[in-house]
Amino acid sequence: MNTQISDRLDATFLALADPTRRAILARLARGEASVTELAEPFAISQPAISKHLMVLERAGLITRGRDAQRRPCRIEGKPLADASAWLDGYRAIWDGNFRRLDTLLQQMQDPKPAKRGKRATHRTTGTVDRRRPRR
Amino acid sequence: MNTQISDRLDATFLALADPTRRAILARLARGEASVTELAEPFAISQPAISKHLMVLERAGLITRGRDAQRRPCRIEGKPLADASAWLDGYRAIWDGNFRRLDTLLQQMQDPKPAKRGKRATHRTTGTVDRRRPRR
Repeated sequence: MNTQISDRLDATFLALADPTRRAILARLARGEASVTELAEPFAISQPAISKHLMVLERAGLITRGRDAQRRPCRIEGKPLADASAWLDGYRAIWDGNFRRLDTLLQQMQDPKPAKRGKRATHRTTGTVDRRRPRR
Repeated sequence: MNTQISDRLDATFLALADPTRRAILARLARGEASVTELAEPFAISQPAISKHLMVLERAGLITRGRDAQRRPCRIEGKPLADASAWLDGYRAIWDGNFRRLDTLLQQMQDPKPAKRGKRATHRTTGTVDRRRPRR
């Protein structure tokens, strides 16, 4: 993977690994806000909020407005889209896990084994839905 | 947000904020592997790899097999699915940004402003595609 892309993913995931920073993004998803406005709902100081904003800004997750007084913060979607695209590369893993779990739950509700030749086949993938989970 | 879910997101995003750990997951997406097998392609020691594996295991991103000798590592999809679901909550933000970028690129290729009443309307959302970017 391209080093620059990898560095950006590091910064994005690190910035997202904190509940206050995620709450700040949730607030900014509803619209721009100043540091004072962002600090209000949290039981932490403005300097602490400013530190979180610096981490978010370095990751490109927010930008600051030019108004010298307010410098409103604005959420930026690009790094979130890139992180989501990276996770999408693993969709087969988690879809697979969920399908195995679905199968287990189905078997618990209907413990009779499906008869040979009557197995339901997945319409699009052609894989057998009632196969046994791998472990 | 539920504290437990929030703590798990912290652990997942922190575990993903490192290129070696992401490379380990990429390898495990192709199948189970022992620590020795995982250490091979990296220019770092087995103890260093073991530390990364501990971070991944604590985040629930991998599980270790019971075979005392090999203890093969296996990727787990659930935390990746949860992280992806969290990011999906911000889809409107990044879709919006990309739509504005598309509009700008279109305008650069075709600088003539669209005539009134002839604007292309988005098929599914009904929004006007050629609106000016917000800033």
